[in-house]
Amino acid sequence: MKCSFEKADLLEAINIVLKAVPAKTTMPVLECILIDARTDSILFLANDMEMAIQTTVPGTILEPGMIAIDAKLFSEIARKLPNNEVLITSEETDTVRISCEKANFRIPARRGDDFVFLPEVERNDYICISQFTLKEVVRQTIFSIAINDNNKLMTGELFEIRNGVLRVASLDGHRISLRNVELRDHYADKKVVVPGKTLSEISRILPGDRDKDVYIFFTNKHILFEFDDTILVSRLIEGEYFQVDRMISGDYDTRVMVNKKQLMESIERSILLVRESDKKPIVMDIRDEEMGLSLTSMIGSMNEELPVDKDGKDLMIAFNPRFLLDALRVIDDEEVSIYMINAKTPCFIRDEKESYVYLILPVNFTAPR
Amino acid sequence: MKCSFEKADLLEAINIVLKAVPAKTTMPVLECILIDARTDSILFLANDMEMAIQTTVPGTILEPGMIAIDAKLFSEIARKLPNNEVLITSEETDTVRISCEKANFRIPARRGDDFVFLPEVERNDYICISQFTLKEVVRQTIFSIAINDNNKLMTGELFEIRNGVLRVASLDGHRISLRNVELRDHYADKKVVVPGKTLSEISRILPGDRDKDVYIFFTNKHILFEFDDTILVSRLIEGEYFQVDRMISGDYDTRVMVNKKQLMESIERSILLVRESDKKPIVMDIRDEEMGLSLTSMIGSMNEELPVDKDGKDLMIAFNPRFLLDALRVIDDEEVSIYMINAKTPCFIRDEKESYVYLILPVNFTAPR
Repeated sequence: MKCSFEKADLLEAINIVLKAVPAKTTMPVLECILIDARTDSILFLANDMEMAIQTTVPGTILEPGMIAIDAKLFSEIARKLPNNEVLITSEETDTVRISCEKANFRIPARRGDDFVFLPEVERNDYICISQFTLKEVVRQTIFSIAINDNNKLMTGELFEIRNGVLRVASLDGHRISLRNVELRDHYADKKVVVPGKTLSEISRILPGDRDKDVYIFFTNKHILFEFDDTILVSRLIEGEYFQVDRMISGDYDTRVMVNKKQLMESIERSILLVRESDKKPIVMDIRDEEMGLSLTSMIGSMNEELPVDKDGKDLMIAFNPRFLLDALRVIDDEEVSIYMINAKTPCFIRDEKESYVYLILPVNFTAPR
Repeated sequence: MKCSFEKADLLEAINIVLKAVPAKTTMPVLECILIDARTDSILFLANDMEMAIQTTVPGTILEPGMIAIDAKLFSEIARKLPNNEVLITSEETDTVRISCEKANFRIPARRGDDFVFLPEVERNDYICISQFTLKEVVRQTIFSIAINDNNKLMTGELFEIRNGVLRVASLDGHRISLRNVELRDHYADKKVVVPGKTLSEISRILPGDRDKDVYIFFTNKHILFEFDDTILVSRLIEGEYFQVDRMISGDYDTRVMVNKKQLMESIERSILLVRESDKKPIVMDIRDEEMGLSLTSMIGSMNEELPVDKDGKDLMIAFNPRFLLDALRVIDDEEVSIYMINAKTPCFIRDEKESYVYLILPVNFTAPR
């Protein structure tokens, strides 16, 4: 095999497929990026067996063929080459030569016959949304998946299409994050659970343009994302997701409207007094026109007053301050509304039309004197 | 004690003295920043017993006094406060209150009676140089001190004043870095060895203006830096430093002039093939007009040709590529000259007037076929 690339194209392609190279594997060939130039286009491919990425790279095929190169080394070398044409040539037994201007590298390579290609995925059910929207909904929900849970379903996110709306939800037992996106076309209803890791990686490699689309295909086993010159295929998490609808309620006895930035900054300050293992709650003392925030820990104490707009009853309620922050950080509105019933039931941070709903369970607290 | 500050002034002062707060200490009070407002100015002070920093902070003394606050927590809180007036008030037993707008923190504090103040330093011998120059010479030499050596002297840098020139040198047994700076005035000759850590920290807190000065006072035990509103005092390393003059020679049989950027980029590429523990040399094959660079390791091999200007004999010589890079990175010239005698004796990278000299010992190598 012998191909030439512009350095920038080469580097971009490597950075895309690199996201599917496993950190650890029992199949050494999967630590490689496969260059497949057997036909008339050049494909780069990586696969960690949960997720595979393939991208088409602009370049010239001088001799068709296929070769697999250690991903980490390939990426490091590509990054440091001069900005010029790069020639990649497979040499005699298990070596590849990478040349650019007067620099030549010779490193080990594999023939790639034992590489695991993309699984076949039927392309019937699909939706099309902008790259920007996909990237956003992932960012706005991914933080409340369970990282390492006995319940596999909690490590993924619900993607549900119903009545022309895409609903994306995640939950970890303490909170739920939910986003509703109106789709431009009508698509068949569908409900799948996508691994959190897949969503993190796709949102990293998506350029995220508002005027460029990503096609998402669904089967019962796989999800396939296609955008620009890239395809990402991932397994789905099997099983029936939680009944999110039943957990969410529109009732409330107290509603506060508060400036989001002020609230965030105040919570960020309170967290300074909370060390890792410590689980000190922030207590909200909601009254007419003002909300007191206070936190007391081993380290010290803080209190602060924020101006608010309040409907309904006065209420004293406490939360894990980090959960509040996580939700507030991904809300773009300047003012947020928090809906509550009492100190024992969840609060909801949501907008009027429910494009977002963040449910957070309160925690027990000792009322400050 | 009760003082008020603008948040920005408070934060700047904390960031300066923070550099002298020890990571570990058997004297808990030294983990604090001392606020000394007993007289008519407000001093912040930190001391790790090797080095102490004191800075004068703009602010208003409402009640004179003294208090010591945990440095880490104080710095975190100050950073997160609104940009407004901050009030620091010592309360009853061992508590301090930090208030800004509607936010109030209460954290533990100490009275500070047991704090270790700056040592007394006689101010007879001194020099005055620009902040920029001091910052530069440290950056240009600090990398070749020995980090953890049995020879304590190698963990410091020579500061020698002789005939109106400040010479700063460091060495680690494999290389020497040397900078000569012409002083604006004539000062008494002096020779001290300053701990590397002191120099790292002073160069971090120095703003580095070209038109602002730093005064450096020397005694036999201490060095004192004074600039803006800040004083840093450090112990010196005792003992007779190495005879650097005897190690440096002007003789050569081969001289190459090469573009610094090209040479650096080529060495940076070669290093990709060298893993941490591995000590593979880069081989320079110096001929008329061209220099071959090559490196072979467990991982692979690379070679490259660079255009050079050569005087004298052809030469093949090998170096630790990281040592070459360290020196090249701190040289500002576009073209550098490397002077060599043979493959067993050190090379010198230096300019005509010897404002800088970098000596690097070569390493053994197997000539590539």
